[in-house]
Amino acid sequence: MAQLGENRWGKSEIRVSKLHRDETRDDFFDVTVQVLLQGDVGAAHVAGDNQAVLPTDTMKNTVYAMAQEHLGPDLEGFAGVLGAWFLDRPGVDAAIVNVAGRLWQRVSDSGFLGGGSERRTAKVAVGPGEAGTWAGVDGLVVLKTRGSAFSGFPRDEFTLLPETDDRVLATSITADWRYDPVPMDTTAAWESARQTLIERFFEDRSASMQHQGWLMAEAVLSAVPEMAEITLHLPNQHHLAVDLTRFGMTDHGVVFQPVSEPYGDIGLTVER
Amino acid sequence: MAQLGENRWGKSEIRVSKLHRDETRDDFFDVTVQVLLQGDVGAAHVAGDNQAVLPTDTMKNTVYAMAQEHLGPDLEGFAGVLGAWFLDRPGVDAAIVNVAGRLWQRVSDSGFLGGGSERRTAKVAVGPGEAGTWAGVDGLVVLKTRGSAFSGFPRDEFTLLPETDDRVLATSITADWRYDPVPMDTTAAWESARQTLIERFFEDRSASMQHQGWLMAEAVLSAVPEMAEITLHLPNQHHLAVDLTRFGMTDHGVVFQPVSEPYGDIGLTVER
Amino acid sequence: MAQLGENRWGKSEIRVSKLHRDETRDDFFDVTVQVLLQGDVGAAHVAGDNQAVLPTDTMKNTVYAMAQEHLGPDLEGFAGVLGAWFLDRPGVDAAIVNVAGRLWQRVSDSGFLGGGSERRTAKVAVGPGEAGTWAGVDGLVVLKTRGSAFSGFPRDEFTLLPETDDRVLATSITADWRYDPVPMDTTAAWESARQTLIERFFEDRSASMQHQGWLMAEAVLSAVPEMAEITLHLPNQHHLAVDLTRFGMTDHGVVFQPVSEPYGDIGLTVER
Amino acid sequence: MAQLGENRWGKSEIRVSKLHRDETRDDFFDVTVQVLLQGDVGAAHVAGDNQAVLPTDTMKNTVYAMAQEHLGPDLEGFAGVLGAWFLDRPGVDAAIVNVAGRLWQRVSDSGFLGGGSERRTAKVAVGPGEAGTWAGVDGLVVLKTRGSAFSGFPRDEFTLLPETDDRVLATSITADWRYDPVPMDTTAAWESARQTLIERFFEDRSASMQHQGWLMAEAVLSAVPEMAEITLHLPNQHHLAVDLTRFGMTDHGVVFQPVSEPYGDIGLTVER
Repeated sequence: MAQLGENRWGKSEIRVSKLHRDETRDDFFDVTVQVLLQGDVGAAHVAGDNQAVLPTDTMKNTVYAMAQEHLGPDLEGFAGVLGAWFLDRPGVDAAIVNVAGRLWQRVSDSGFLGGGSERRTAKVAVGPGEAGTWAGVDGLVVLKTRGSAFSGFPRDEFTLLPETDDRVLATSITADWRYDPVPMDTTAAWESARQTLIERFFEDRSASMQHQGWLMAEAVLSAVPEMAEITLHLPNQHHLAVDLTRFGMTDHGVVFQPVSEPYGDIGLTVER
Repeated sequence: MAQLGENRWGKSEIRVSKLHRDETRDDFFDVTVQVLLQGDVGAAHVAGDNQAVLPTDTMKNTVYAMAQEHLGPDLEGFAGVLGAWFLDRPGVDAAIVNVAGRLWQRVSDSGFLGGGSERRTAKVAVGPGEAGTWAGVDGLVVLKTRGSAFSGFPRDEFTLLPETDDRVLATSITADWRYDPVPMDTTAAWESARQTLIERFFEDRSASMQHQGWLMAEAVLSAVPEMAEITLHLPNQHHLAVDLTRFGMTDHGVVFQPVSEPYGDIGLTVER
Repeated sequence: MAQLGENRWGKSEIRVSKLHRDETRDDFFDVTVQVLLQGDVGAAHVAGDNQAVLPTDTMKNTVYAMAQEHLGPDLEGFAGVLGAWFLDRPGVDAAIVNVAGRLWQRVSDSGFLGGGSERRTAKVAVGPGEAGTWAGVDGLVVLKTRGSAFSGFPRDEFTLLPETDDRVLATSITADWRYDPVPMDTTAAWESARQTLIERFFEDRSASMQHQGWLMAEAVLSAVPEMAEITLHLPNQHHLAVDLTRFGMTDHGVVFQPVSEPYGDIGLTVER
Repeated sequence: MAQLGENRWGKSEIRVSKLHRDETRDDFFDVTVQVLLQGDVGAAHVAGDNQAVLPTDTMKNTVYAMAQEHLGPDLEGFAGVLGAWFLDRPGVDAAIVNVAGRLWQRVSDSGFLGGGSERRTAKVAVGPGEAGTWAGVDGLVVLKTRGSAFSGFPRDEFTLLPETDDRVLATSITADWRYDPVPMDTTAAWESARQTLIERFFEDRSASMQHQGWLMAEAVLSAVPEMAEITLHLPNQHHLAVDLTRFGMTDHGVVFQPVSEPYGDIGLTVER
């Protein structure tokens, strides 16, 4: 005779970010939340009776909803608010809330570096084919909370995207450039190129990721005279607005769901 | 003076699946699509003029919309329909459509094995603490297109989930069970346990993942007499319905967006 | 005043495989092992005294050494042998041994399919550039225990590799082929191409991965008349022989360490 | 009649690092190299004749050997030396060398932060079970080139590891600590804990990873009075010495092969 032992249900990998806008300076909080509940759900297991089973989809929505007011630098505080809320649901006896915050590094009032897996790259090709020397960077993760628009695009029957003149823009830059000639100090040249890419991303207003890429490429070609051409790959790491009005709340437009897939896939080469 | 060279824009990692219902037998097509376009978008790069930039969000929606009629075993055909559609958009000169189909292996009229990374696991602990022998499986991916419901759950202000008596249910089973005593033939015992897990997943109607887990655990405890207890971890790999009515289409309820995150996180132990 | 609480030390992700040769039929056992020990190691933590700390490198070597005699279908038995061994080391009070076995699917007496993440791929390109229709497969993992040699290669001061006329050969096939014309039944054509790739990999004796690739490509071009050309990417997933003579043992040449990186990177295109 | 088209062979994901010791200040260069060659290897494909096929194992060894003299901040220079070397091999017509350098951030004369995926974590558990508030960090990657020994350990027939009083020590710290009481300013407490972990890792000489963990845990308990206990998980990310004497070279002991698997798996809890 089988008996139900320990059990829990919950939602894992709930990604949510929140923008805090000040007069001139923004904060950006970016976390992944896990909610695990225990409670009076024996009948759900044994008899398929769901009356005590808070849906995990509701847990996700609750995290989004609570983020608007409660997500900030105090991650333990946010976890505590969520824990207390879920413990208060009928039939819930215990709750565990895990919050993991990504460490965005501030670069400007509205610009952040995502760090992580960034690498400096180099390529040398010798022989009769396409010979030369390339340098580059991959995994250079950047996010800005101001200065990015996307509007004036064509619409057809499958277009739902609203126009926006102010959005969160994030990408993981891969850049590869060909040198001709190779600079004397390749490290100084690389640092200059990288610094220019970052500055232009954060300082220029752009009308699209394509426009952003062009502005960056044009500036870096000016900054590094030995660069003959540059190719940028700029995956658009979308931050989808969460519509809180569905929960009867006032939506301040500050809660986002970052998504890994699908992503906008933008690539361009700019030549001297 | 910088000049725009080769460039393209598109959408990558668009996951879409389609259910084809016959009288008694279902087919399930599960693909990841990439769309890459080239065209007359110099002004978008240089001047921020987006009038020729078909949004990548529209590309995604187009893939969902076209999937209802055109996604099937002929992946090249589906890619061709998409390619022709995008080539026909104003300002688009060339299109590349990549489609990668996951190879679900049919087990029954409505049941499929996802194969892949499945592993047989074993654990032995010796010493004064919790000693014993465990066996298990991880990465056992299963999906069924019939026999799964979720309704009768509590609702609060954050609940949007509709009730359903028929949904696509998919998970990657991790199971660990303790033997007492250890069977003479551990391979035969493991095969019996695995086979029972698969059969019960596909054959039993369930009212929730919790219910499904209980039914599987109860059956496997019966099938393998040396099993003292079993713990199941059943992440709910959601297949979100795509609402095609937003595109002015009739929605036949057969197009889904599989999502990796967040996921429902269900765990239970069942003892003899 | 700080006090040491619960602690353990061990080795994780120890990959080891073993070939069992019969007259005509081979078995191949492929596992990942984790060893975790507890014991009398307070002085190691607090005072840096390592006299009771069995090195994790020794744990790894022990797993390799024991695999020659004890690794087989009974994973629990292998874990038990290891657990008993480690419990018997001076200062060790408890041991946990986890073993996860990869499920290679037998195709022939010496051929196995690794399953997993295999996908069928399709690509359509339209427009003025390189237009056409491609099909393919990725993640098709194959391993054979006979019929692969590598000898007669040039040697220089950095060459240590011994010549061999019989090795374990494993790869994850990525194949892409262009159709001209596109076959009426793309699924039948794909199945024929895939089946031919698998058969040739397992049945042909090859002198290198390059040779193996050529033989496969030539055969698949014959089997599918609509195929104009095929490109194969064949990463060589090395299985390094573990030298057991270092432990004073007789080495039967059947224990291997599979490594993920680096890997041999072979690519070729074959045209009609 | 099949014809060989474009083809290349090479080695991917060759990881190599090099330590540059100055009087008091070390540099650490850490790269992943890919070598791809083209040449006169038609007979290898078609007829299994390997006389022009430089083994990919030799390519790997060449990268290790060249790293001792040539790996430094100028990645393009290192790639160029390798490219020229391979182009000079008999039968090789063209070579591509890709080098990707990991960006270790200097913290001290011999200490580096690996950045990347670091996250701040928080956990709240409410209900009748183990209730409380935890904070932590995961993915805090640190590497030091001085101040780490491992000697005096027990030896048995499977022990090959040499004793060392100076090794490269690297880990990705996961720390979780319980607060009692919860500090008023959780962010300040977290920053203090993280800073102390980093400082102790780099400044304390340790006799093992266990000893290193104890020293870090003890210090952080002192630094943060609200911390009741802390659990550290310290995977030992091994840097294996490459033996260059096998190539007839003088080995300066500065070239290492970083390996992902297997890894030493160290965990400890320290209580107040």
